[in-house]
Amino acid sequence: MLEARTAIRNLATYHPPLGGRVGLRLDFNENTAGCSPGILARLREMTADEIACYPEREPVEALVADYFGVERGELLLTNGVDEAIHLLCETYLEPGDEALIVVPTFAMYEISAAATGARVVKVPADQEFRFPAPGLLSGITSRTRLIAVANPNNPTGSVARPEDLLELARRAPQAALLVDEAYFEFYGRTLLRQWRALPNLFVARTFSKAYGLAGLRIGALLGKGAHISMIRRLASPYNVNGVALFCLPAALADESYVRSYVDQVRQGRDEFQRELKRWEIQYWPSQANFVLARFGPLNDAFIDCMRARGILVRDRSRDYGCEGCARLTLGTAEQTAQMIRAFREILIQSGASEARIQ
Amino acid sequence: MLEARTAIRNLATYHPPLGGRVGLRLDFNENTAGCSPGILARLREMTADEIACYPEREPVEALVADYFGVERGELLLTNGVDEAIHLLCETYLEPGDEALIVVPTFAMYEISAAATGARVVKVPADQEFRFPAPGLLSGITSRTRLIAVANPNNPTGSVARPEDLLELARRAPQAALLVDEAYFEFYGRTLLRQWRALPNLFVARTFSKAYGLAGLRIGALLGKGAHISMIRRLASPYNVNGVALFCLPAALADESYVRSYVDQVRQGRDEFQRELKRWEIQYWPSQANFVLARFGPLNDAFIDCMRARGILVRDRSRDYGCEGCARLTLGTAEQTAQMIRAFREILIQSGASEARIQ
Repeated sequence: MLEARTAIRNLATYHPPLGGRVGLRLDFNENTAGCSPGILARLREMTADEIACYPEREPVEALVADYFGVERGELLLTNGVDEAIHLLCETYLEPGDEALIVVPTFAMYEISAAATGARVVKVPADQEFRFPAPGLLSGITSRTRLIAVANPNNPTGSVARPEDLLELARRAPQAALLVDEAYFEFYGRTLLRQWRALPNLFVARTFSKAYGLAGLRIGALLGKGAHISMIRRLASPYNVNGVALFCLPAALADESYVRSYVDQVRQGRDEFQRELKRWEIQYWPSQANFVLARFGPLNDAFIDCMRARGILVRDRSRDYGCEGCARLTLGTAEQTAQMIRAFREILIQSGASEARIQ
Repeated sequence: MLEARTAIRNLATYHPPLGGRVGLRLDFNENTAGCSPGILARLREMTADEIACYPEREPVEALVADYFGVERGELLLTNGVDEAIHLLCETYLEPGDEALIVVPTFAMYEISAAATGARVVKVPADQEFRFPAPGLLSGITSRTRLIAVANPNNPTGSVARPEDLLELARRAPQAALLVDEAYFEFYGRTLLRQWRALPNLFVARTFSKAYGLAGLRIGALLGKGAHISMIRRLASPYNVNGVALFCLPAALADESYVRSYVDQVRQGRDEFQRELKRWEIQYWPSQANFVLARFGPLNDAFIDCMRARGILVRDRSRDYGCEGCARLTLGTAEQTAQMIRAFREILIQSGASEARIQ
């Protein structure tokens, strides 16, 4: 009888609530303004012949490496950051090894690490969702072979201090430290290029968030050339599709579009956080394009009421420490205004006093 | 010090010769007419918002399952068949296990299987590249957990008898039998749906070849629902990009385009095989959209001369048993005529007698 490996049979399923996403999409941390007009124009230039050709990753990889200011061998383009995580786990982890992650965090670290048969050691953040540097440091053993950190973290929006991340890399030289900077553009600080000093550091970047290319599936894994060349062996030469490769140069050329969008998100984030404070709703100061807030027992009702007003937000109440929490993506200035109007209406109509809503 | 797993350090690199593919592309078994006009029209309808959204695989998966006449749970869409192979290996293989493959065959079976740490057992085809059923059957051990067969095979174009494949599945119930039908449309016989009787059978199909969507990266892994649900756990929910998902319904609706292209390829294949026979150049009767032919010591010169005439063909001389061989993809009737003209010119100009060219 054919049976999957034990690690696969024990794997949790991850099934994001994608169905029927009609309305203002504040549920998946996407760019809610859409990709830039330049990218769309480029897409429409593709020919029937270009669609029919196997994608050629290398020339675009060289462009992206230049863009990030790294050597060409220090970067691998991937089918979204999901694939970068998958390949990294597969390259370094085997049964008997340990992977250290923070909880709550992005779901794919645990899935890809556990799939290898390695043990996933979860270090809980405290109630303020601060980066648990001491817990991670004391969780390191000789079998630790991967430490995955989203910075800013998802779904909390909180960040780790660079010195804590560097200390982790130093204290676990036998492990790959993945710093997933998917939300970098909304934060502004990076560990990119620190691998010259810390050879076990990897940084992941994505074009799915600020750049508005979630549908195209393109991310990048950056690290020391000797490591990236190992990981490259495992990847299909055709892992990134031809449309993404064709359009990416237009995305890189369109920095002003991204900058303007990011500015709006950051202003909206401040504004929404002030609003949450005003209503005394617990939230966690965010450096990403979303805010996690606790609506408590009224969380489901809040999410439903937002949906009734055409706004999709994400239930995160099943994440570790996130009971009664929803995550709201910030979009353009106008979209944030619309979201805040709906938010106020719901609170007022529910007759919410601060005590009742919490 | 951070080191990749032993299996990764021992992995061969696979680097297909993609650079500078200018000319008639008879080197990668793509659809040389390009994707259908309907697909291109569909592509151009995509909005900036659709590009910015995470892809939703399930509704398209349901369509494709209906198209193939299987249940929805019996199909997983993948980032090309490469990902299907990768996921299948990762689901079933671990160190100590064995994977059985034929040589020569498509390179990714060995790479993905070896990456797991399993031992790859290679069963050579005979000089006529017939499917080595007896060798595979006698290669089965209690540790055999994967048998991968491309049918038609690549780069030989030869096929296995259905009864031999079914016998393999029966004799190794503890192993996944992958029958990779990437070239199905040019052959016409399938094992699809046989898993009702043989629960360890998987069939892979691609939209990269006959359908002309190699750039979009979309393939399908089909098998018993209980197995597919295990493999699905391992896949990213966003493994297939949004453009592929957006365009695929147009591809499914455009059967006449594929049929007309396939007819031309099959006629061209007959014609080119007659031509090879006429010049007494060794070739292997093919059921795919390519023919493997032996030009012997003149192979490199032949490939160069074709390139000088604007026609790209693929050197396969480093594949097992393929010394002095090139693989030529068949395209449209017109392209095949162009290819055969160039082929004749080269043979005549080299002053080839049958004896010299062999």
